[in-house]
Amino acid sequence: MKGVIGIDVGGTKIAFGAVSPAGEIVLRRTIATHPDDSFDEGIARLSAGIEALLAETGWGAGDIGGIGIGCPGPVDTERGVILSVYTLPGWSNREFAAPMSERFGGTPVRLENDANAALLGEALAGAARGKRSAVMLTLGTGIGGAVLLDGKIHVGANGAHPELGHVPALAEGPECPCGLRGCYEVIASGPAIAEAGEAVGLDGSEAVFAAAAKGHAGAQAIIDNVAKATEAAIWTILHTFLPEIILFGGGIADGHWPLFEAAAQKSLAAATLARDQGVTIARAKLGNDAGIVGAANLVM
Amino acid sequence: MKGVIGIDVGGTKIAFGAVSPAGEIVLRRTIATHPDDSFDEGIARLSAGIEALLAETGWGAGDIGGIGIGCPGPVDTERGVILSVYTLPGWSNREFAAPMSERFGGTPVRLENDANAALLGEALAGAARGKRSAVMLTLGTGIGGAVLLDGKIHVGANGAHPELGHVPALAEGPECPCGLRGCYEVIASGPAIAEAGEAVGLDGSEAVFAAAAKGHAGAQAIIDNVAKATEAAIWTILHTFLPEIILFGGGIADGHWPLFEAAAQKSLAAATLARDQGVTIARAKLGNDAGIVGAANLVM
Repeated sequence: MKGVIGIDVGGTKIAFGAVSPAGEIVLRRTIATHPDDSFDEGIARLSAGIEALLAETGWGAGDIGGIGIGCPGPVDTERGVILSVYTLPGWSNREFAAPMSERFGGTPVRLENDANAALLGEALAGAARGKRSAVMLTLGTGIGGAVLLDGKIHVGANGAHPELGHVPALAEGPECPCGLRGCYEVIASGPAIAEAGEAVGLDGSEAVFAAAAKGHAGAQAIIDNVAKATEAAIWTILHTFLPEIILFGGGIADGHWPLFEAAAQKSLAAATLARDQGVTIARAKLGNDAGIVGAANLVM
Repeated sequence: MKGVIGIDVGGTKIAFGAVSPAGEIVLRRTIATHPDDSFDEGIARLSAGIEALLAETGWGAGDIGGIGIGCPGPVDTERGVILSVYTLPGWSNREFAAPMSERFGGTPVRLENDANAALLGEALAGAARGKRSAVMLTLGTGIGGAVLLDGKIHVGANGAHPELGHVPALAEGPECPCGLRGCYEVIASGPAIAEAGEAVGLDGSEAVFAAAAKGHAGAQAIIDNVAKATEAAIWTILHTFLPEIILFGGGIADGHWPLFEAAAQKSLAAATLARDQGVTIARAKLGNDAGIVGAANLVM
């Protein structure tokens, strides 16, 4: 086996690559998703793209150990099906793994949620390399979480994934559709910061960060809440999963890493029952590559 | 194999039994722990007790599949050693599993923390029977937690166990030595309820429950906080582990089950992202037997 194929399916584009056993992307390509087109047409275009990629790398069909696919939203990993995802209307509830496997000579094909795939990427070749347990928080338009325990992605009851964006974070925070007042997502996601900023005349989450840096009191209060909410979320992770490493990813955390690192370290230092277990706080390393590398890790 | 031996080591007594593969205690005995006596003497008395038990059941040495031991405090499950436990000064940091195995013809001997053992008991023959994932909260002089994922006890970084008694529960609650204001334990453990009761002239946690039932406003406020803290702890469990079942055990929860059941169900009903996954809330079933049965489950 020379390597595997990792595919990162998004609502607008699909990135895929030939990945070495060490997690290095040997060659990568991108095609448009066309999520409203027919599913069969999409599978045909993707397969053709992979065949072209294989031809360029010089890998034959017998050289690939499998195909891993990361997708947004909930997936049925057993059946290899993307469940209902509004960003991929044409792709939902269709068998994905089986036709791909057939097209590539029966090679193993596995599907996983993209947040979980990103963590598997970091575990193979990024910030969580060599760790048996890790929790990754991804802060962007929402806050997602992925959990690796004993080397495997943790899955909840009924195959559902945990919702780490919705742990208690700030008792007096706004209501969230999740049912809780002051969950982490409703304080620290991009749209949450932007909405709080609107109330003090600021336009967008980056404007809030920028104004706080210049001493704007209202913006500073919002950022203080983001820090406090982060402390609470980290506290919860330390007293539940207690993983070897906690990773932050996503645009909000990546763009303002010192803030998130300081809040997480403050929480860790205060946690008398957890702080001596060698838990590390780190920034995700692979960025957009995590999807391809993690998808590849599914079949390694 | 006719069954295994389960041993539940406590600070004052050691209960042990012959346990069938179905988790039924065929015969049980108890001896005093004498925690300050020599460890070697303790092992000798315990071994003699097990030999007598085996003789009474009619099981020969070849009939037992192993010996499982549940102990208070942290244990090194790899080495089979009880770590520092103040209730068992003479037994700490001594090899426990190895001499027991030697004494019983090399049979497998495994050691586990008693909270984890209790959950393994409930999973084998109690309220969590047949479940692959479960979280058990035990409310007594402290609040302990045990977590079963994919059929195995979840262990945190560095072999440490999660501390579910110290998740955020009531922002305005008292300070806890864990480092958090208003963790679950500092609101809902027996001593926490008793301490809050003192401030309104009540003596002990049971007096607080009794006064609240009779309409005492100060007591009712304390019990309301216990319920609110329980809602928060359950919320956290639902959005992190998302287990198939959440169990309550221990004297406080068992003695006031309707209160805890109602709070947990309220939290579950409000959790829009978790409530459709079939999570069950239940009371632990085995009571004091859970220790022996769960210890037995370690070697099944």
